[in-house]
Amino acid sequence: MRILGIDPGLRTMGWGVIESHGSRLSHIANGLCKSSGDDLGARLLSLHEQLVDVIARYTPDHAAIEQTFVNKDGAGTLKLGQARGVALLSLAQAGLSIGEYAPNRVKKTVVGAGHAEKEQVLYMVKLQLPGCEPAGTDAADALAIAMCHAHYGGRPALQLREVGT
Amino acid sequence: MRILGIDPGLRTMGWGVIESHGSRLSHIANGLCKSSGDDLGARLLSLHEQLVDVIARYTPDHAAIEQTFVNKDGAGTLKLGQARGVALLSLAQAGLSIGEYAPNRVKKTVVGAGHAEKEQVLYMVKLQLPGCEPAGTDAADALAIAMCHAHYGGRPALQLREVGT
Repeated sequence: MRILGIDPGLRTMGWGVIESHGSRLSHIANGLCKSSGDDLGARLLSLHEQLVDVIARYTPDHAAIEQTFVNKDGAGTLKLGQARGVALLSLAQAGLSIGEYAPNRVKKTVVGAGHAEKEQVLYMVKLQLPGCEPAGTDAADALAIAMCHAHYGGRPALQLREVGT
Repeated sequence: MRILGIDPGLRTMGWGVIESHGSRLSHIANGLCKSSGDDLGARLLSLHEQLVDVIARYTPDHAAIEQTFVNKDGAGTLKLGQARGVALLSLAQAGLSIGEYAPNRVKKTVVGAGHAEKEQVLYMVKLQLPGCEPAGTDAADALAIAMCHAHYGGRPALQLREVGT
């Protein structure tokens, strides 16, 4: 089973592809989709094109995305929401089933603690995916999300319960 | 100049197309894109397909979208943001320049008061676009956004200043 994990963001969107054979995981690729400038439509268009390209190149069977933590920064939530909407659309257009996982669930699964620091996530991702060099912490987070999905077996029922928590 | 106005939303996205010849406006079409269910990816995919169809059918020259009012409802802002991201992507994919207008600006331009009720917007839209029967208040809002864009002449400089306010 090949899984694409996405850590959504407007400026930087991390992505990571892993292969899972039972409990054995291996790293396929990871990277960052970036966008900048004042033209929001052009930025979303660029992110979409980059994601479509990643999906076409690595042909995942499943996708997983971080459940967005909604905080008091409304403007930040809106920006993230717009980028996340484009990411979800790209995955749905490719016919991929999408698992959603809360950040704490991802950290607990990969590091063993729900409040792990980004550096700990990076360390554990590299430890569990030998030979993997994440392009940045957002790419490491995306790999961790894919690993979390592998852990839960990509089962729709589990995904739905996850979304509901 | 043919203008497509969008009132973004995940459950209901209003759209309206008008034609502007100087200060003279005429109604072309309006409607609602709808999505429902638990599968967010499928909902965004459906909204995208509906918008792509509207753009292909009515071939607008410009697009305008409501600037989102960010409130304390973080979950609501996230949902709206995801739908708005897909709307902006659909417009950018069609190569349309996009004007963004705050709700108060739209109401002030169309009704003359920044805090007008939805019914007043509906009334003034019907008055200024003879023969127009909006499919709902969201479609009337979308037509009002297009009218606001026509009022500002669709000039990029004005759009950018608008975004900055």
